[in-house]
Amino acid sequence: MRQLLSAALLALAITPAVADDDIVLRGMGSFHVGGRTVEVFGEPIRELVLSPGGVPLRFDANGPHQVEAMYVQYFLPQSRRGKYPLLLWHGGGMTGVTYESTPDGRDGWLTMFIRKGFDVYVSDAVERGRSGFSLAMSKEAPMILPKRNPFERFRIGTHWDADAEKMEALPGNQFPVEAYDNFVKQFVPRWTTTDNAIIAAYTAVEKLGASIVLCHSQGCGFGFRVAQARPELVKALVAVEPAVAGDVDQAGKLKDVPALILYGDFIGGDARWPHMRRLGLDYAAAMRAAGGSADVVDLPGIGIRGNSHFPMMDRNNGEIADLIENWLRDKGLVN
Amino acid sequence: MRQLLSAALLALAITPAVADDDIVLRGMGSFHVGGRTVEVFGEPIRELVLSPGGVPLRFDANGPHQVEAMYVQYFLPQSRRGKYPLLLWHGGGMTGVTYESTPDGRDGWLTMFIRKGFDVYVSDAVERGRSGFSLAMSKEAPMILPKRNPFERFRIGTHWDADAEKMEALPGNQFPVEAYDNFVKQFVPRWTTTDNAIIAAYTAVEKLGASIVLCHSQGCGFGFRVAQARPELVKALVAVEPAVAGDVDQAGKLKDVPALILYGDFIGGDARWPHMRRLGLDYAAAMRAAGGSADVVDLPGIGIRGNSHFPMMDRNNGEIADLIENWLRDKGLVN
Repeated sequence: MRQLLSAALLALAITPAVADDDIVLRGMGSFHVGGRTVEVFGEPIRELVLSPGGVPLRFDANGPHQVEAMYVQYFLPQSRRGKYPLLLWHGGGMTGVTYESTPDGRDGWLTMFIRKGFDVYVSDAVERGRSGFSLAMSKEAPMILPKRNPFERFRIGTHWDADAEKMEALPGNQFPVEAYDNFVKQFVPRWTTTDNAIIAAYTAVEKLGASIVLCHSQGCGFGFRVAQARPELVKALVAVEPAVAGDVDQAGKLKDVPALILYGDFIGGDARWPHMRRLGLDYAAAMRAAGGSADVVDLPGIGIRGNSHFPMMDRNNGEIADLIENWLRDKGLVN
Repeated sequence: MRQLLSAALLALAITPAVADDDIVLRGMGSFHVGGRTVEVFGEPIRELVLSPGGVPLRFDANGPHQVEAMYVQYFLPQSRRGKYPLLLWHGGGMTGVTYESTPDGRDGWLTMFIRKGFDVYVSDAVERGRSGFSLAMSKEAPMILPKRNPFERFRIGTHWDADAEKMEALPGNQFPVEAYDNFVKQFVPRWTTTDNAIIAAYTAVEKLGASIVLCHSQGCGFGFRVAQARPELVKALVAVEPAVAGDVDQAGKLKDVPALILYGDFIGGDARWPHMRRLGLDYAAAMRAAGGSADVVDLPGIGIRGNSHFPMMDRNNGEIADLIENWLRDKGLVN
């Protein structure tokens, strides 16, 4: 007995005390994937001063360039419950930061799904964030949003104003409007001609094997198209507020790829979102007609009200994450 | 005794089994800091098609824009031993990815210093990576490196070649040359007119209180300048291969900021690095003349050979991380 006690106490002593809400990882890291090499020529030699007052540098940009690779950061929880890696794909003009801490500093879905036991991989799409962009792209004017744009375009409110007192949020909105200025810092420039490169890089994530893809907004256009092209790589597709869907004529390719399509609140009163939602509904119907499984959840329809276009940042983001986890469990994708 | 045993066994049962090399975090997340709002006007209205075949969008970029904020990602180990947060600042044309997994997939300094018990904060400087860039910057041609450039400029080798067989690495180089193609994927476009904005955002990290700053290459120019401006915020400065130093006339402002300046191998035979190293030596001498503490370590001088400009990625990156940790311990900054 004494020996057993000693062994137990020794085990306790060498095991660091882990609190219930600690995050225990068996690994973390990052990599770039995909891309190609292109030859750049005809660029003028530039005399650059890299820092004010510095010595001029003769810079020749000609020669082979690496372009169109994609940055991926991953976190592997010690208690793994998700059967497949969970890939988080962001929307237009944003980066993987979408899924990190919310603009008001709460846990985002990245941390939540790590805690739920999923190996989580967060990407920055080609051209965005830590994926960088190429010399060819830099000559084309990217789309860079003024502060007003996301507020009124993504169902946060009806009127943005430099004077916070004059802003008009949609009534009952779950978006943390008081942190809107932090939110707009997450946006990065966006080009409009890079779809094929983005899809190629997302497809290159096949090195991870089959995965669950959770996409947002523009990212769902890529999610549906990658699933159409390589359905064996996608064990499930969770489309959060898709701005576009796939090609309905190819929806049958997803007959073995269960899909959950989620929409927030305030869509009926919006100028653009009823049409965008219609694309998702039509695609889901085409999937079902082909024998596939597509669940469309309008959050207000199940009593969850006030969600903006960004449920991963909304005040009830934990509730939506639980809903997604439960759907994945129903599909047999959680141990 | 039986009661004590039960308690011990119960504690074991509810404590998840944590392996020695697991990473236990009490928190993780990210935020953007700093920046300002500027008014953009005179931009033409553009009809943009966001995805091929999509419905044109009338896009007006005019109005207030958020610019020059900085992205910071943080990891807080459960067993904290560093007395202050450790800030990792990258070099020119790169992002915080510098400190993540090495190009050949080993642990980088981010993970190593988390394991050593430091609260670690990794930034992407203003204009780079997840910090985004502004409409004003997008009109100026950024510096985008061809694949050859970092190989020959940063003491990896003497000749880069598209044919790997013809590449000539410096003999005994610790850089994982076989993963060079992964390495160049980490580079992002760089502007040459953003120093003041970068310094402003780095200084805004004061919201964290006093910190230890570990900088690399161009990032050390910012490290020394922020320490000169706000010495009370910087408890120690670790300058890894600084490409520039501060203003020697202001080195006295660092008399209470101990500095470690580290250089790798192959400097003597390089065209540019002896001059750049001289800037660091002169600054260290000026710090000491003013009563400060500045330690310059030439790695080959202490028998550590083969380091490139990127010791955080070199094969012996763990050995260099240990050296830095020991120096911080000597300075009383590790519990």
